[in-house]
Amino acid sequence: LLTQAQRERLEIVLVSPRNPLNIGAAARAMANFGFSRLTVVAPYEPHWREARSAVGAPEILGHAREAPSLAEAVRDCVFVAGTGTLTSRQPDQPALSLSGSATAFFADTDLTGRAALVFGPEKHGLTRDDLSYCHAMITIPTDERQPSMNLGQAVAVCLYELVRPGDAPPAAGRQTEQAIQAANSGQLDRLAELIEETMTGAGYSPRAMQPANRHDLRVLLRRLAPSALDTRRMMGLFRRILHRLPHGDRRA
Amino acid sequence: LLTQAQRERLEIVLVSPRNPLNIGAAARAMANFGFSRLTVVAPYEPHWREARSAVGAPEILGHAREAPSLAEAVRDCVFVAGTGTLTSRQPDQPALSLSGSATAFFADTDLTGRAALVFGPEKHGLTRDDLSYCHAMITIPTDERQPSMNLGQAVAVCLYELVRPGDAPPAAGRQTEQAIQAANSGQLDRLAELIEETMTGAGYSPRAMQPANRHDLRVLLRRLAPSALDTRRMMGLFRRILHRLPHGDRRA
Repeated sequence: LLTQAQRERLEIVLVSPRNPLNIGAAARAMANFGFSRLTVVAPYEPHWREARSAVGAPEILGHAREAPSLAEAVRDCVFVAGTGTLTSRQPDQPALSLSGSATAFFADTDLTGRAALVFGPEKHGLTRDDLSYCHAMITIPTDERQPSMNLGQAVAVCLYELVRPGDAPPAAGRQTEQAIQAANSGQLDRLAELIEETMTGAGYSPRAMQPANRHDLRVLLRRLAPSALDTRRMMGLFRRILHRLPHGDRRA
Repeated sequence: LLTQAQRERLEIVLVSPRNPLNIGAAARAMANFGFSRLTVVAPYEPHWREARSAVGAPEILGHAREAPSLAEAVRDCVFVAGTGTLTSRQPDQPALSLSGSATAFFADTDLTGRAALVFGPEKHGLTRDDLSYCHAMITIPTDERQPSMNLGQAVAVCLYELVRPGDAPPAAGRQTEQAIQAANSGQLDRLAELIEETMTGAGYSPRAMQPANRHDLRVLLRRLAPSALDTRRMMGLFRRILHRLPHGDRRA
């Protein structure tokens, strides 16, 4: 079973939830399984207000963070997993079966760093862009004839899996030196921006900097999973390159 | 993973659900995890109608059975498990952790016999009387500060556990001859009635036949788990005793 400290390291992130009942149900499932940290990304304000002011609203909603974007929400996380089904997409990230995911959250990640479990909006789930901020995609083994789960139920099922006693040994102290220093999402985003700036400075056409390339760069950095130290080194390298470029001295 | 045939052997039973949204959510979770057999016991009619006629109501609700009592609902089942938490009660049945329950449903029970997973009403869950029709109580590992789950979420979590790939080997063909002939719930109820009739015929005071004793008898028979053949033999024995009793010839 997870320790209280492990549960507190996990942030539950709801991206643009619409239905106040679903928001309440997600918070209730968190309370049922002993999780307390909730972030809501760009909620539809009237419904978010309604969810928070509902009679008997879980206390968790009163303490929830609001973030303008998913990038902001997971900025300080060293492991971010998005949820979804594989039926209609081929993700750019490694797909993990939910039943094996406790290890990814609590054994392979950093003891001090934070982790996030991200759920998409009710209608369509997480977009490809949302997933580009994720290190992995977690798939729930739903029936292909009815793959799409209700948001509150999906949260309940995922959190149950994480606290479920059984095959996942949530080891404390098994982490390597390297894992303890994993770069967080914000550091990776800053590195990506610097690389992009460098490429522009090096004369890449603006066309090469289209959203598709930004997307690929975010995905690539998460796949490489550099440590915080590696990330700082790469930042240093790109700053130096940028500095040497003819019009690249803005950051010098 | 469970076969289609295994999923079809499991009946999901909702005892007196009140909230139409919860009924719909339970049916949706069933569709998500590939289960299709639903029985609703003594539903509050207006809400049951509302759940069935809701826009986008899962097809499962249209095919659901209605039963006047839990005894009726599980009459042909050889294994019945009720769900709940251990926080406020000490059950008469063995308590199984949800994470180990797939084996109880799909390896230890009869290949041809049916199994039922029973959920109580939203307000208070299954009563002690409801549980007396169950061979086991399945507990969901919820936090003691917020143990009570929403009905739709509880159904989702339990069905996820049953289909979850992993440590439960849903063996086909591992059943023993004895298990294949397990008595179903209706046979146990008929035996209990006959035993009660015999006791009355043998001069037990009506006071001894109060509800508490009926309850204990139901619990006892389920704990003994007699085979169908054993049950028929016991029926024969008690009929014979009843026949020999001075006023016991009604069944001769």
